[in-house]
Amino acid sequence: MLPAAIIGGMAPRTELTVAVAIWDGVEELDAVGPYEVLGAWAAMSDRSIRVLTVGQERRAVSGSHGLVLVPDLTWEELGRPHVLVLPGGASSLQVADEALLDRMRGFAKGGTLMTSVCTGALVYAAAGILDDKPATTHWSALTSLGRYGQGIELRPEARFVDAGDVITAAGVSAGIDMALYLVARLESEERAREVCRYIQYDPEPPI
Amino acid sequence: MLPAAIIGGMAPRTELTVAVAIWDGVEELDAVGPYEVLGAWAAMSDRSIRVLTVGQERRAVSGSHGLVLVPDLTWEELGRPHVLVLPGGASSLQVADEALLDRMRGFAKGGTLMTSVCTGALVYAAAGILDDKPATTHWSALTSLGRYGQGIELRPEARFVDAGDVITAAGVSAGIDMALYLVARLESEERAREVCRYIQYDPEPPI
Repeated sequence: MLPAAIIGGMAPRTELTVAVAIWDGVEELDAVGPYEVLGAWAAMSDRSIRVLTVGQERRAVSGSHGLVLVPDLTWEELGRPHVLVLPGGASSLQVADEALLDRMRGFAKGGTLMTSVCTGALVYAAAGILDDKPATTHWSALTSLGRYGQGIELRPEARFVDAGDVITAAGVSAGIDMALYLVARLESEERAREVCRYIQYDPEPPI
Repeated sequence: MLPAAIIGGMAPRTELTVAVAIWDGVEELDAVGPYEVLGAWAAMSDRSIRVLTVGQERRAVSGSHGLVLVPDLTWEELGRPHVLVLPGGASSLQVADEALLDRMRGFAKGGTLMTSVCTGALVYAAAGILDDKPATTHWSALTSLGRYGQGIELRPEARFVDAGDVITAAGVSAGIDMALYLVARLESEERAREVCRYIQYDPEPPI
């Protein structure tokens, strides 16, 4: 159960709001892997959990490989979520977006549990949220991650890193593992196992 | 390289068209797992590969957990794809949709490589495409799968089953494994490994 203080402002029956950010160039599985896991959790849980996509505007966006997604609401409409999932994709634009970085700092200061997948971690680093913390990102972006922040302890081997108020996952498919961990951390391992069974997550990479 | 006969009708420079079907109630990761893998393949390959989403109409659809997706084109606009990915979700409606079943039979007869994820296999079974073939589906739908077709050899333990002209995957996340296998079958194991590395697919279920 979350402290009442961070539930203020939500619809009366909504206990927990999880926002998954999307934009032009977002890497599709970075966003939809956690969305599936957390959406399945929301459907199973006795708690009232909303999983929403959020974008700059209420218009369709086109992902890294061309998938067309429509956000449920804008950042302004969202307010501050309890949990944010920031995927990767087009991150070189994102790290230069001062308004986005300010928003990330505001969420982090306000108590949002900040999570990222893949190069989403670069945005957190550029916002200063990862300074002096352990973190990870896509294997191809580890060096960049170190450069965007101060004193970030890089964990190249980790599937995800829980630094308390910020959790970073490695590349693309690692968001699924991270999201299952989130279910375990925010509810229970039993519930996470239930979600895992629902999505039949017994991966067997065939090559 | 595909035989020229099955390339007829495509845009001149497109060698291979892969269609991922979406509709109201589609299970998000069933669709987007393979979409990510095959989209990454298309970006890397020297061949001209298009990965498209297809829907009944050109309007936004809402997935099983609420994700809003917009298809690239309609079934009519698509024509016959070289490869079809049929996800699961709302499958009880799909198996009763005679027009959809007819379309599936037409694709199969025309030489489309038919692939399914999760309960998408029920649709293929209802269309008669899986009769006397080995197949799999989500663990919760195995009994139904047997009932929808004739002489289907159920493979409950398989992550996916390649029956030649039809490939069925198990539940939700199994579509990722199946799609990586598709890359290996249609191009090479080396390319599949490259895609695997790109999506950093070294899964470690945390529970």
